[in-house]
Amino acid sequence: MSNRSRRRYLDKIFRFRAQFPQDVANFLVLNNVNIRYFTGFGGAAALLIPREGESVLYVSETNFEQARYEVKNARVEMLKRGENVFQKVCQDVKVSVKDKLSVDLISIENWRVLVKTVNNEDCLVVAGDVIKGLRAVKFSDEVELIRRACRIADVGVSVAREMVKPGVSEQEVIAEVEYAMRKQGSGGTAFDTIVTSGANCAFPHGSCKSRVIREGDFVVVDLGASVGGYRSDITRTMVAGKIDSRQQEIYGIVRAAQDLALKAIRAGVRAADVDAVAREVIDRAGFRDCFVHNLGHGVGLEVHEAPALRPDSRDMLETGNVVTVEPGIYIVGFGGVRVEDTVLVTEEGVEKLTNATYPL
Amino acid sequence: MSNRSRRRYLDKIFRFRAQFPQDVANFLVLNNVNIRYFTGFGGAAALLIPREGESVLYVSETNFEQARYEVKNARVEMLKRGENVFQKVCQDVKVSVKDKLSVDLISIENWRVLVKTVNNEDCLVVAGDVIKGLRAVKFSDEVELIRRACRIADVGVSVAREMVKPGVSEQEVIAEVEYAMRKQGSGGTAFDTIVTSGANCAFPHGSCKSRVIREGDFVVVDLGASVGGYRSDITRTMVAGKIDSRQQEIYGIVRAAQDLALKAIRAGVRAADVDAVAREVIDRAGFRDCFVHNLGHGVGLEVHEAPALRPDSRDMLETGNVVTVEPGIYIVGFGGVRVEDTVLVTEEGVEKLTNATYPL
Repeated sequence: MSNRSRRRYLDKIFRFRAQFPQDVANFLVLNNVNIRYFTGFGGAAALLIPREGESVLYVSETNFEQARYEVKNARVEMLKRGENVFQKVCQDVKVSVKDKLSVDLISIENWRVLVKTVNNEDCLVVAGDVIKGLRAVKFSDEVELIRRACRIADVGVSVAREMVKPGVSEQEVIAEVEYAMRKQGSGGTAFDTIVTSGANCAFPHGSCKSRVIREGDFVVVDLGASVGGYRSDITRTMVAGKIDSRQQEIYGIVRAAQDLALKAIRAGVRAADVDAVAREVIDRAGFRDCFVHNLGHGVGLEVHEAPALRPDSRDMLETGNVVTVEPGIYIVGFGGVRVEDTVLVTEEGVEKLTNATYPL
Repeated sequence: MSNRSRRRYLDKIFRFRAQFPQDVANFLVLNNVNIRYFTGFGGAAALLIPREGESVLYVSETNFEQARYEVKNARVEMLKRGENVFQKVCQDVKVSVKDKLSVDLISIENWRVLVKTVNNEDCLVVAGDVIKGLRAVKFSDEVELIRRACRIADVGVSVAREMVKPGVSEQEVIAEVEYAMRKQGSGGTAFDTIVTSGANCAFPHGSCKSRVIREGDFVVVDLGASVGGYRSDITRTMVAGKIDSRQQEIYGIVRAAQDLALKAIRAGVRAADVDAVAREVIDRAGFRDCFVHNLGHGVGLEVHEAPALRPDSRDMLETGNVVTVEPGIYIVGFGGVRVEDTVLVTEEGVEKLTNATYPL
């Protein structure tokens, strides 16, 4: 880890501390992705962040040497076989009603172990939303990684466009797309690549099957790359062969919905209002029940994170959010269309991070 | 879903019910992989399995139509926006101290919502281990899928052997390996493919980097495929160019440890004892502190599941377990060796499911 990236991770911890609930003296981060967010290292059991002083990363013997080598913004401690991480933490810091210990995400079973260890449930706070909110507003280094992941996803889309034709299987398209993204430096896919065709396009998460694409099929290609753990997410819908008038109509509505939603986004706007803009276009065209999912979601170390662009969202968009905008229309027995881009929210509007041209 | 696979999923639910704790009338499965185990469908919010009668799969609007199309062994109910799955469940079944509701895996935050919904914590039981134990013993259809995933992984290894030479980057090896596995029908990788070289081999989970392989490097290739959601896991260590005597010595110890461990496995043997067999070989050779992880783990819908082959394991091996056997020696500053196969536990011993030849 360079001094520069050490500084970047310390910045994240610094911003986090400023948001500690008042009576919390220490925060125990248990979620793997959150640990990666603060340290760059995903193979640890827990990360203790005190209100002041050095953070401690608890790592099992398996990944201990790698963590010592890679992590420079926290002290790395080995968790020996059979050792309980909660006991170690309670030895390292004081936990009381005045100096509470907060955790981000924990199962009920582990919670019970933790309560037993500290001996008083009132010393503990669950506060997962703090880190969620923090991660929703990207630092410039994070935006840069997502930008690179988006550029690679654009390449994936262009390969898909070359591949999609009658007689080619969905699986063959996926193979070439993922290969091309790897060759461009992607560290694996952002999520399971989706290629659905024909009537299967009516299922937003239609499984990848061995179906062979036929003349006139809608083909939905939903893919993403990963750079330094940060992800991208893009969907393009194409037609294998000639588009017919009904396809043209539905596609046009989805594109119009995306267009207006993209124009509605800027810092200070309610995420629910942006969802409403796209939903209204689709409603008015008579496809109210066919837009069966949210308009979009945040993208970062996870492909689904805050903020949420959906009717019941309470999120307010902020400069530094990276979100998808992905309206769709799904008609059982016929097929479906989705168009999606990953964008950065700015003061004035959006910067599109994915830039593949629209096939239709 | 064919009648045959419907029957297979019902068999799993049938075996599960026989293991319900006595005072449990209904089991609410919340873990996605567990839901997939019982229904083949991974995109649901919850699966309610009553002691008797039809199971209910709760699915959001997004995946509702797909679930209705694919799932035939449970009633599929839509979870509308804003609806609480726990409330739906409590409307559908009676929950009381005599007729408890059990859950498999739940965060403390959701647990609190559930407790509030049922109004009495004594009506609830957390029992994640039941499904863990069930999934550890594979049905024949599961073994067949893992077998196919293992064959594809063998192809991945043979491609890696062709690729590994001085001047080729780790990333290039990964690209070709994953491409070949996709072309063989893999539904994505079983986990992030690991290719580490040189001194980085000292880290068992060494990140995939752009490092270029050099003459004389140890190269650890750890990969897996996925078929119908079921995974495989294999590791081969190779040398780029000529092997030296120290490498030969360390490699020989690891192979001997694996060999003896494989011979020690059969139904009725303690998993900890198998770990001990391999660990002793490595200890005696003077590398006690260099075998920094468990000997192995179960493989199925997840790449790490029960049983655990480790010193503190309480698991007893059973016919139908599918486990990895993967001793290793890791020396910081020098490198490392790991050799791993996925095997099926039988009455008499093991059936090796991965069969790639050993490069050294």
